[in-house]
Amino acid sequence: MTETAHPRPRRTRADDARRFADLLRQQIRADEFRDRGLPSEGDLVREFGISRNAVRDGLAQLKSEGLIDRAPRIGTHVTQRKVEHGIDRLVGLKQTLREYGTVRNEVRAAMEITPPPAVARRLELAAGERVVYIERVRYLGDLPLSLDLTYLEPGVGGQLLGCDLEHNDVFALIESVCGQSLGSAELAVEAVVADAHSAANLQTPEGAALLLLERLTRLSDGKPVDLEYIRMRGDRITLRGSLFRDPSGNTTVDDTTEWEFT
Amino acid sequence: MTETAHPRPRRTRADDARRFADLLRQQIRADEFRDRGLPSEGDLVREFGISRNAVRDGLAQLKSEGLIDRAPRIGTHVTQRKVEHGIDRLVGLKQTLREYGTVRNEVRAAMEITPPPAVARRLELAAGERVVYIERVRYLGDLPLSLDLTYLEPGVGGQLLGCDLEHNDVFALIESVCGQSLGSAELAVEAVVADAHSAANLQTPEGAALLLLERLTRLSDGKPVDLEYIRMRGDRITLRGSLFRDPSGNTTVDDTTEWEFT
Repeated sequence: MTETAHPRPRRTRADDARRFADLLRQQIRADEFRDRGLPSEGDLVREFGISRNAVRDGLAQLKSEGLIDRAPRIGTHVTQRKVEHGIDRLVGLKQTLREYGTVRNEVRAAMEITPPPAVARRLELAAGERVVYIERVRYLGDLPLSLDLTYLEPGVGGQLLGCDLEHNDVFALIESVCGQSLGSAELAVEAVVADAHSAANLQTPEGAALLLLERLTRLSDGKPVDLEYIRMRGDRITLRGSLFRDPSGNTTVDDTTEWEFT
Repeated sequence: MTETAHPRPRRTRADDARRFADLLRQQIRADEFRDRGLPSEGDLVREFGISRNAVRDGLAQLKSEGLIDRAPRIGTHVTQRKVEHGIDRLVGLKQTLREYGTVRNEVRAAMEITPPPAVARRLELAAGERVVYIERVRYLGDLPLSLDLTYLEPGVGGQLLGCDLEHNDVFALIESVCGQSLGSAELAVEAVVADAHSAANLQTPEGAALLLLERLTRLSDGKPVDLEYIRMRGDRITLRGSLFRDPSGNTTVDDTTEWEFT
C-alpha cells in the first residue's frame, strides 16, 4: 500500500464490506455465478483481500437487498437475476424484457378523470379538458416488477380505454391508435423507499428501495401525450445505458451526447 | 368518472395519497413553490380532488422522504430543493452542479491497492497490475451528496494521487493528466437502502433510499480507465435526461437514440 499526501481516516471493516458488496452485486447482476454458484466465504476472503467478518457483513447487506439468500446447511446462493431496463430508448417494458419472459399487466384503474392542475400543465391541456388515468401493476412471470401511474392526453387516452391494456405496452398502443411515432421523452429518476401500500402492491417489504421514474413522453410532432410515474422494485430492476462523448470531444454543458442500447 | 370494460379494485385513500404525492414531489423538484410556499391542506384537497386524509398521508410520505417539513404552528414547507444530475453526459459532479454551488470532496482514501479479480477484469488489467483506489464523500455546501468509490487504471491513477482531489472532478483530472478526452461510459442505476455506515458517511438515516450508480468509463481510444460505485442521497439528487426517438422512427431494439442535457 503506497502512502500518499492525502490524509485519510482509518479503514474500517464497514468500508471493506461496502467495497466488497458493490463488486459482488455487479457480478451477480452480470450473472457471473449462473453456472458455478457463489464462491465460499473463504474464497471471497482471499479474492477480495478482506477479513471474514467484512465478507459476512457484505453478504448480509446483499441479503437485505434481496439479491442472495443465506441459510445454515444450504449455504449462500443468488435468489434472482435482476432484469435490465435501458434508460436510453423509448421502448415499453414488454418489448424491453421480451428476452426475460412475458410481461402482463394487472389493470388497477382505467378511467377518465378531471386532472389536477399539475397534470393539466404538463400535458398542455386546455381548461376543462379531462385525462385518462391508467394504473397498472406490471408482472414478469409471477412477480411484480413495477407499479405504473399513467396520465394520457384525452384524445389518445380515450382510444386506449378500448384496447387490451393487460397484454400491451402503453407506448405501443399510443403509436398504434394515433398512427404517429413517439418523438421524445423527459426522464427523472429518483430513489424512494416503499410506503406500506406500494409495498403491498409490489409484494416487497415496506421500506424496500424503489426506483421512481417520471417520464413525460411527446409524439413526434412535439405534443405531450403521456405522463407516467413508475415505481420499480429496486431488487428486480437495474436501469442501464451507455453514453458516448460528443465526437468533437467538446466538454461544454451544451453538448448533445449519444446513447446506445446495451 | 367514465365506466370502462376494465374491472378494477376499489380506489382507496392510499391510492389517492400516492397519486397526490407523486405529483407534488414533481412540483417540489421543479421548484414551483419557491416564491409562494406550499398550498394549504384545504387548497390541496380542492386542487387534487381527494380527501383531507389522503392529502395528509401524501404529505407524511414526502416528509418521510425528507422533501418537506411539517410542524404544528409552523405549517408545511419545502426543506430543500433536490439537485439534478444529467445522466446523459460524461461530466463530473462539480461541473454539473456549478449552478447550485461549490462541490468539495472529503478524501477518505487515496492509495494503490491490489485489485480484486472483479475489478481487474473490468479495467482489462494484466495479471499483477495494481490499481489506484480513491474514496470520497462529495459535498455541496455543508451537506453530503454522494459517497464515491473509484478504481483507476494504474498509469492514470498514479498521476491522480499527486493532484488536488479535494477540489476537482476525477473526470477533469483524468483528461488533464493523460491528454486524451473521455470516450464512453457504461452506466447502471439501482435503488438501495442505506446501511448504517453509508448512512453515517452521508449524514442520512439508516434505511434511507439511495441511488447507486455504477459507471465504467473509457478513454476515447476505448481503454477502460475508471470504474466507479457512486451512492447518491435519494432525497438530494434526481437523475435527469431527455431522450429522442431515432429520426427514422424505427422501433427495433438495435436503434441508437440521442440524449440531450436539459
